[in-house]
Amino acid sequence: MSEIKVGIIGATGYTGVELLRLLVAHPNVRVVAVCSRQNQGTAVADMFPTLRGKLALEFVAPSLDVLQECDVVFSAAPNGVAMNYARDLNRLGIKLIDLSADFRIKDVAVWQQWYNQTHSAPELIPQAVYGLPELYRQQIQKANLIACPGCYPTATTLAFLPLLANNLVDSADLIADAKSGTSGAGRSASIGSLFAEVAEDFKAYAVAGHRHLPEISQTLKNIAADAGANSAQLNLTFVPHLLPMVRGIEVSCYSTLNAQGQGYSQAQLVEMYQDFYQDEGFVDVLAEGVTATTASVRASNMCRISVFRPQGGNKVVVLAVIDNLTKGAAGQAVQNMNLICQLPEHTGLLGAPVYP
Amino acid sequence: MSEIKVGIIGATGYTGVELLRLLVAHPNVRVVAVCSRQNQGTAVADMFPTLRGKLALEFVAPSLDVLQECDVVFSAAPNGVAMNYARDLNRLGIKLIDLSADFRIKDVAVWQQWYNQTHSAPELIPQAVYGLPELYRQQIQKANLIACPGCYPTATTLAFLPLLANNLVDSADLIADAKSGTSGAGRSASIGSLFAEVAEDFKAYAVAGHRHLPEISQTLKNIAADAGANSAQLNLTFVPHLLPMVRGIEVSCYSTLNAQGQGYSQAQLVEMYQDFYQDEGFVDVLAEGVTATTASVRASNMCRISVFRPQGGNKVVVLAVIDNLTKGAAGQAVQNMNLICQLPEHTGLLGAPVYP
Amino acid sequence: MSEIKVGIIGATGYTGVELLRLLVAHPNVRVVAVCSRQNQGTAVADMFPTLRGKLALEFVAPSLDVLQECDVVFSAAPNGVAMNYARDLNRLGIKLIDLSADFRIKDVAVWQQWYNQTHSAPELIPQAVYGLPELYRQQIQKANLIACPGCYPTATTLAFLPLLANNLVDSADLIADAKSGTSGAGRSASIGSLFAEVAEDFKAYAVAGHRHLPEISQTLKNIAADAGANSAQLNLTFVPHLLPMVRGIEVSCYSTLNAQGQGYSQAQLVEMYQDFYQDEGFVDVLAEGVTATTASVRASNMCRISVFRPQGGNKVVVLAVIDNLTKGAAGQAVQNMNLICQLPEHTGLLGAPVYP
Amino acid sequence: MSEIKVGIIGATGYTGVELLRLLVAHPNVRVVAVCSRQNQGTAVADMFPTLRGKLALEFVAPSLDVLQECDVVFSAAPNGVAMNYARDLNRLGIKLIDLSADFRIKDVAVWQQWYNQTHSAPELIPQAVYGLPELYRQQIQKANLIACPGCYPTATTLAFLPLLANNLVDSADLIADAKSGTSGAGRSASIGSLFAEVAEDFKAYAVAGHRHLPEISQTLKNIAADAGANSAQLNLTFVPHLLPMVRGIEVSCYSTLNAQGQGYSQAQLVEMYQDFYQDEGFVDVLAEGVTATTASVRASNMCRISVFRPQGGNKVVVLAVIDNLTKGAAGQAVQNMNLICQLPEHTGLLGAPVYP
Repeated sequence: MSEIKVGIIGATGYTGVELLRLLVAHPNVRVVAVCSRQNQGTAVADMFPTLRGKLALEFVAPSLDVLQECDVVFSAAPNGVAMNYARDLNRLGIKLIDLSADFRIKDVAVWQQWYNQTHSAPELIPQAVYGLPELYRQQIQKANLIACPGCYPTATTLAFLPLLANNLVDSADLIADAKSGTSGAGRSASIGSLFAEVAEDFKAYAVAGHRHLPEISQTLKNIAADAGANSAQLNLTFVPHLLPMVRGIEVSCYSTLNAQGQGYSQAQLVEMYQDFYQDEGFVDVLAEGVTATTASVRASNMCRISVFRPQGGNKVVVLAVIDNLTKGAAGQAVQNMNLICQLPEHTGLLGAPVYP
Repeated sequence: MSEIKVGIIGATGYTGVELLRLLVAHPNVRVVAVCSRQNQGTAVADMFPTLRGKLALEFVAPSLDVLQECDVVFSAAPNGVAMNYARDLNRLGIKLIDLSADFRIKDVAVWQQWYNQTHSAPELIPQAVYGLPELYRQQIQKANLIACPGCYPTATTLAFLPLLANNLVDSADLIADAKSGTSGAGRSASIGSLFAEVAEDFKAYAVAGHRHLPEISQTLKNIAADAGANSAQLNLTFVPHLLPMVRGIEVSCYSTLNAQGQGYSQAQLVEMYQDFYQDEGFVDVLAEGVTATTASVRASNMCRISVFRPQGGNKVVVLAVIDNLTKGAAGQAVQNMNLICQLPEHTGLLGAPVYP
Repeated sequence: MSEIKVGIIGATGYTGVELLRLLVAHPNVRVVAVCSRQNQGTAVADMFPTLRGKLALEFVAPSLDVLQECDVVFSAAPNGVAMNYARDLNRLGIKLIDLSADFRIKDVAVWQQWYNQTHSAPELIPQAVYGLPELYRQQIQKANLIACPGCYPTATTLAFLPLLANNLVDSADLIADAKSGTSGAGRSASIGSLFAEVAEDFKAYAVAGHRHLPEISQTLKNIAADAGANSAQLNLTFVPHLLPMVRGIEVSCYSTLNAQGQGYSQAQLVEMYQDFYQDEGFVDVLAEGVTATTASVRASNMCRISVFRPQGGNKVVVLAVIDNLTKGAAGQAVQNMNLICQLPEHTGLLGAPVYP
Repeated sequence: MSEIKVGIIGATGYTGVELLRLLVAHPNVRVVAVCSRQNQGTAVADMFPTLRGKLALEFVAPSLDVLQECDVVFSAAPNGVAMNYARDLNRLGIKLIDLSADFRIKDVAVWQQWYNQTHSAPELIPQAVYGLPELYRQQIQKANLIACPGCYPTATTLAFLPLLANNLVDSADLIADAKSGTSGAGRSASIGSLFAEVAEDFKAYAVAGHRHLPEISQTLKNIAADAGANSAQLNLTFVPHLLPMVRGIEVSCYSTLNAQGQGYSQAQLVEMYQDFYQDEGFVDVLAEGVTATTASVRASNMCRISVFRPQGGNKVVVLAVIDNLTKGAAGQAVQNMNLICQLPEHTGLLGAPVYP
């Protein structure tokens, strides 16, 4: 595919502008439509001055007329929007890469309960592929509809995956203590996201139940089942927290080594992780004793992982870091696009993280 | 005691200046000596302009000559300093309130292992009282030597205390995911604490073992033993993280409800905590569903606590927040002084937290 | 006055909660009414958990019924609210301390132009006293209606005051490059004040003209006129900037020494400032060569000032720092209340700044 | 030049790692040597994990042996280092692009006074070209030794350049109020750069005289002289401030329009700037009324500029923003390398700024 014509639905949020940052630098992409009903007629670069000189388009209202000239459409709109375009795009043979939650949950009843709305295209859910390349690369390459994972699910799943795939921990007792920068809360006006509220504050939220919990549980259960474990008993306690910073997610994952797992020293656990991810371009398992930091992945598509077995006890602690806007959203979406379009998976995603 | 004459050893760090902030406003205190060998002759207010007009002293070299005129001596010096003054002060009948770790651990061998030095006053360890008023108020009132708890231990202990005192959780499986602002790392030059390193970064550290782990374990085991539980099996996984902010600690504590504990609904757990702490002036248990935030305790001596039982499962999640410099250090030290000096416990500690 | 009964109109913003922080600790004040039409029935401490245990009131709708029991009413409401209560409060002999801009500008036409609304109580403007104690202390003591200065005007006026009062600079060429923390933008939802927008950003705003410009100009012209200078030619270029921090204003003021001013060395300029402010409890002129920092006044009512004459040239650079919420708003309002109520001016305002 | 072999002296600071970030992504560059005497033998990616998988080199001690295989050598070492390599590199025909101050000042006596050391290669100063492409592009293309401008000088010079080149302002009365993120202070341990010191603080520094003042003055005088103005009378008041953020410089420049300048409306001033910089790929003059923000250039090589004439008065206010590590250091160095090596000037520098 010499040039991929790309359209974006809902490009006025942080995920949208990160997607544009990556796409304008992608050697195989031409952005042909950036949609926003509310801002039609405004130059995209007037809203996002970082794109001045990089993108000459104006926002247009989303419509099939506009989107049908695309090869690939990304939706970075809020939950409940992409599902209304999916059927038509599917019919027209246009690939849809959805960064929202619309097609992530296979059980539509569960989805409707957690997202508190009726799904408008439930018949497409079965064919949607969960866009975590480290887990579903082959299916992604043949998919028409990609449900990109949430930010927390990306980090948490990559952290637990090798342990569950190798049946080394008690899956009934998984804990993920997750922390996210505030860009994850989106670019919409709310008192809770004001600088004066967020700076110099740290707190948990949604302790009673966060929407990413069923998403993560679904994937972890699939992994456990594939590993021949009793997936029904899998239980995850997931507590997200808000960090006084813009970009970055860290998840500290705690689980109890089972009899088989206790046979692994810390060094062997690290080695197992390194082997597991050795062919992955965007998962980097650090050396024993080195701790993953969100700064080490800022503005990049990398996930870095550290594995510890503190004091040789029966707990394994896995730390995973990503940039929530990149590997946790826009970068992973581009990674999916590359796979769908048979391009090298890392195309346009090789920039080193920005430090400091 | 009409006027308490106070001396401070090692007042050039963040704990020291926070102590001075509180003491210069304390109605019963006169600061008579502020010691720093390195800075003797410098006006304290030249180093700390926030004290201009509040404190007219110069730093003096620490010595018995200087300290013997005091009623109470605080040590905010690094670990390994206070123990060298303790014997003499004790002999002179001067109360020593030590903010360092010198007298926190009862087993001197354990202390020497974690702090990597020889203890110079091991004979005083037995009489040192662990300065957590919520646990040892009566002993503190009669003590000559107070070992103020570390910042993480204060928050973590107050979080687990009601569960362990009531024997409601499996003590073999305690997890504390702790996060601290960078003032906890102290006021000394290091690349790791530079603004450009800390801002927009989040990471765990000391996963293999942090010095506060044996301190917390010691206290939790005492609590469990007092509750008639098998304290030997108590096990804590403690993972501290560094926050891109100045002040504040949050600890998210995870434990598994035992048979008795599972009889408590979330609402009943909250009520149990509220009852447990109802007479405590510096522990505030929030209403069910309300989440503790570090901003709500900034620059104050309060600890706020939230209790959750997510989705009615068998995990209880307790969130505790403090200001690491105040309730986690200087404020608690003043609280101890008030108790030792038979003053109302809250004297000089009633300022509302600073928000935003 | 043994106990001052205080009411507050519009206490749901950052200025309001700072006022409450100071008032609940003030030894002579009893807060009897906290008004908010929108939040009536909500406990104040539910909105602001920092006030838990400090204030047991609920928000009530503002009304004369409620306010008439007060001795003093503060208005921390947006511009255009206080003027609607002023006439009635005045008639009832209740002191009104207005933190908004309603009564700051003497020329009602100018006010209406900059604030884009009709003034509803223009007849009270003449009797309103501009609440800058360093300039109008005696008038404040006898006033019924106080117009508290804006945050930028407080810092900028205190910076230029000694130069203009002594006729040492060319008043036609004053420049104030001002920077404010984001709490100055208030506690209302807006994209521009989101953490993800403000963090790691710095920018000027309102370069074409900020509402504080006519306010500062009015005061500086009065000062110049009192000094016998030609006040008509006074001209100020005022450019405010937004800082990625919560509290604090710094103003760097540039002016050209006139013939008389050039007779002063840098040391003499510093000394002149120290003399000028020697009796002021809340203005602190630093030693020659020491630079004022916003951190040195955080959460306090202090203004600190540095004076430089770089390289002995003809420019004088004056740096002034305040906490925009304290000396720039709530603290100064309390200072005014103390004056009105014949209390020692510093009552309830002596807490040392919070550092770090 | 098919492949440029590059060596770096002093790559352990923030400028060095930014240079590496850009160079590892540059299509024409192969980094062959990364020097650090102190860290020789350490993998570069162990010190800077952002480079894991991007750069396989270890630090080596700097020496001619190592550097002589290079086509281009960058020095990102502290002031006083590059001058010791310059003579040998020059002899070997290796281009030296120095990011330090060693060759910026033409008058060696002035340099020695401000930098407080003896210059070890004064005979090379005359041939060093000041690496500001917008001013000296043609000379850079033929140079062997480039003195990259300082961060403040880059922004300040680009801000004043069109006004001075067109003789529109009184050059005796230039003011630059500059603000920099803390990465400008470098990656070395110092209390003043600690997170707990810098966060929530803002302050001026070096008001009495900053090393960038003579550098800026030198260039501005050259511009004025080229425009036929009396450059001797040019005088700049330059006051830098430290921002609580990592990357970014904003300079607010104030000057007084002369008779000719007063003929320009604000719109005409903006248009003049746009015309002046219309062929520049890395200078972007914003539309009238739009304000330059540091966030709009983060991690990019752009300089954005806003021009105002507030209230139609006689002052012109020019705001310039850059990323101090990119256009203010490493990016500009690469831009210079591209010019020297006859590559398209923007090669490897086209990444969009990172927002948020």
